[in-house]
Amino acid sequence: MAEIEKEAALPLKENFSDWYNDLLWMAEIMDVRYPVKGLYVWYPFGFAIRRNTYAIIREILDESGHQETLFPLLIPENEFMKEAEHIKGFEDEVYWVTHGGKDPLDVKLALRPTSETAIYPMYKIWVRSHADLPLKLYQVVNTFRYETKHTRPLIRLREITSFKEAHTVHATWEDAAAQVKEAVELYTEIYRRLGVPVLRSRRPDWDKFPGADYTDAIDAMMPDGKTLQIGTCHHLGNNFAKTFDITYEDPTGEQVLAYQTCYGISERSIAATISIHGDDKGLVLPPEIAPVQVVIIPILFKKGAEEVLAACRNVQARLKKAGVRVEIDSSDLRPGAKYYKWEMKGVPLRLEIGPRDLQNDVAVVVRRDNGEKDQVPLPEIEAGVLASFEAIQENLYAKAKAELESRIIPCESLEEVKETIKKDIATIPWCEKKECGLAMEDEMDAGILGIPLDQEGNRPAKCPICGKETTTRVYVARTY
Amino acid sequence: MAEIEKEAALPLKENFSDWYNDLLWMAEIMDVRYPVKGLYVWYPFGFAIRRNTYAIIREILDESGHQETLFPLLIPENEFMKEAEHIKGFEDEVYWVTHGGKDPLDVKLALRPTSETAIYPMYKIWVRSHADLPLKLYQVVNTFRYETKHTRPLIRLREITSFKEAHTVHATWEDAAAQVKEAVELYTEIYRRLGVPVLRSRRPDWDKFPGADYTDAIDAMMPDGKTLQIGTCHHLGNNFAKTFDITYEDPTGEQVLAYQTCYGISERSIAATISIHGDDKGLVLPPEIAPVQVVIIPILFKKGAEEVLAACRNVQARLKKAGVRVEIDSSDLRPGAKYYKWEMKGVPLRLEIGPRDLQNDVAVVVRRDNGEKDQVPLPEIEAGVLASFEAIQENLYAKAKAELESRIIPCESLEEVKETIKKDIATIPWCEKKECGLAMEDEMDAGILGIPLDQEGNRPAKCPICGKETTTRVYVARTY
Repeated sequence: MAEIEKEAALPLKENFSDWYNDLLWMAEIMDVRYPVKGLYVWYPFGFAIRRNTYAIIREILDESGHQETLFPLLIPENEFMKEAEHIKGFEDEVYWVTHGGKDPLDVKLALRPTSETAIYPMYKIWVRSHADLPLKLYQVVNTFRYETKHTRPLIRLREITSFKEAHTVHATWEDAAAQVKEAVELYTEIYRRLGVPVLRSRRPDWDKFPGADYTDAIDAMMPDGKTLQIGTCHHLGNNFAKTFDITYEDPTGEQVLAYQTCYGISERSIAATISIHGDDKGLVLPPEIAPVQVVIIPILFKKGAEEVLAACRNVQARLKKAGVRVEIDSSDLRPGAKYYKWEMKGVPLRLEIGPRDLQNDVAVVVRRDNGEKDQVPLPEIEAGVLASFEAIQENLYAKAKAELESRIIPCESLEEVKETIKKDIATIPWCEKKECGLAMEDEMDAGILGIPLDQEGNRPAKCPICGKETTTRVYVARTY
Repeated sequence: MAEIEKEAALPLKENFSDWYNDLLWMAEIMDVRYPVKGLYVWYPFGFAIRRNTYAIIREILDESGHQETLFPLLIPENEFMKEAEHIKGFEDEVYWVTHGGKDPLDVKLALRPTSETAIYPMYKIWVRSHADLPLKLYQVVNTFRYETKHTRPLIRLREITSFKEAHTVHATWEDAAAQVKEAVELYTEIYRRLGVPVLRSRRPDWDKFPGADYTDAIDAMMPDGKTLQIGTCHHLGNNFAKTFDITYEDPTGEQVLAYQTCYGISERSIAATISIHGDDKGLVLPPEIAPVQVVIIPILFKKGAEEVLAACRNVQARLKKAGVRVEIDSSDLRPGAKYYKWEMKGVPLRLEIGPRDLQNDVAVVVRRDNGEKDQVPLPEIEAGVLASFEAIQENLYAKAKAELESRIIPCESLEEVKETIKKDIATIPWCEKKECGLAMEDEMDAGILGIPLDQEGNRPAKCPICGKETTTRVYVARTY
């Protein structure tokens, strides 16, 4: 694809918003020039990252007893409005199909903003007996929001192209609660594979999913200190079961309401991964999702060029056989230009092989994440590369985790929070009373992100509104 | 999922239409009870078949230098109507989004019926130089047709959930023609992997894709003798390039129009596979796409039950390690009920292990495709299973090919054709003049499917309309 105009330099990462936008374009992740606001095009390179990322998501869901399925995009108005009537719907943000060809449709069709109202009428039919439970299905689909806010590729979209939504049904409230817990663990594991440390918290009651008993959420910290919600897990109680009449026959033969959960993850997973690991030179990709994991750069002189190229091809073949995605860059570019190009694309390892290296039977291996150079004996190149992948993966996660932890700042006063969240994440004591929470949000001019799921060992401190002693501390941050 | 009402017997395959509908439901491929006409739900089992099938499609495209990408679903009216103005559009079959929330949209948005008008405005930007060519991209997406005809799961849909569409750009007309040829070969290979023999033909000029120079198509013969179009490959000439202004700089520095092709395949690939191989007992799946490739049935008596179960688990673990998708059915069902269930689901191999078998250190292996039973020594079970997979794959294809060939009937008169196509496919000489073709279609009350791409060795015969001698014979069939 045209490499034109790519000579422009990437902005420094400290100017995060500019850096993000230019990186998506220069590294060929997304093209923003599609002629509708909020809709973007995946470049093949970006799509390859998506494919590898979603392979991880599918693997982790499949292994934990979920099954993939697929429901229609279009939801008839009458089913769609059931949610609005009984709970609180998405009707202000939904795209409506009103015409087929030139004919107005008898029943308007909504483009799913999420699939509760598409799936639950089928669950009503499918769920009959306690023996059918738990039912744990998911799908990966495009969903739509008529977004009036500022849109941004991968983050705020009118077509979410890659929404993984799971919908489960259980016999009891407790089983559903256990499922939400499992979902949080699975998402944490998915992000661990992407090298992304996460904040796990329960949203305040006024910020939960409409119709949920509670919402547990996963957030990442972006480089500018704002958090990005990258996963939500909802305990739906039997609220939707009442609306959609989802019942099952319990062991005593009685028909009872089922309990449900749903949880979702989107291409924001890729936005977080890219933003957290990338640097001033471009993408830094965890090996598992890198479309190209190793690039081999032949260092050519007039003398011995053929031998070097042959050695490079041999290394490529061996690495391929070992399951590595590997390319040789034997283009006419200067080595420096090649380094620039492949660094921009986040290729985890660069192998340089020249005549001198051949004499010594080694390759020079350069890590993208920290720039470290090493010599690896050619006979052991497979093991060397795979060991480097592990080291890179560990380093990316450790670095991001240290960064995250260093930027969660315990505060005691609301003034302190206001100052802190200009660039970091704050924690503040909260007595868990709603009126205090809302008053705090008002004074901080920021929302409570949530109550950390993993808190322990907090010393008692005073709620900054009512002064009551509490060991609960909550996250406060600016959010995307 | 509820197994209720599944006691009903599957209709005989000779009643193809009933058999097809009931099979999709009883084998849990698609649920047709979604509350909008022409939209269906993939059961997890059906979706697993889809996943395996599309893994083959992706593998074959990736290996031949295609790259996967993803473009938006929604196409603004002005871009969409360019095709209608310049060529001939889909505007009578398209769904229109007219509202976002309660607001009418400034520009109506079409749900893509196919993606030329979404992709080619980007190709205009992306294609700059001859060095960018060929450009070979594809996507797997949901597309929509406001279908007024009778809809049928996997075959005629309002939401085509699994449209794989490739769009390529080339420097010359000849390069594009070569690409169409490659596409036909790739599709043939995809269907070979699905055990499906195909008819390959060039559509008559009046039946080609609007805006194409020509259309080569792939059809399968369904059990009722009607053909199902399961792949089309279009040479677009520079017709769309003119409309969307797709030019490139040639080596002399001149801006010239590019040439394009596009080719598509959908979930009809699964409809054909299921329909051709299935039998009166249910699905018969090629091993490569079977969600469960082997089911192990422990034959239990009071004595030695533990040993048998342990042996079954051991075999399962070994087969899993060898990459086989394998399950043990240790439910309380009678063996006969288990056979019925797994035969319905098309599981290629059933392994039975009882105390007697253990004594002899063997398993009884039963093939789904032909019912053959064999004893395989347990120490060699992996090799035995993999060899059976190959044998099944070969047999399914050979059987289907023999069936197809025996049902292509050379005819000399139009009367003969009319009679033949009541249950089979006919061939008939044609002079290739349009007026004779249309006159033939009129008299046969059926369309010319196409001119076979692979014809050779036809004896000269007379065009049934004008009497001119020709060696061209065309396929005639009833079609889905």
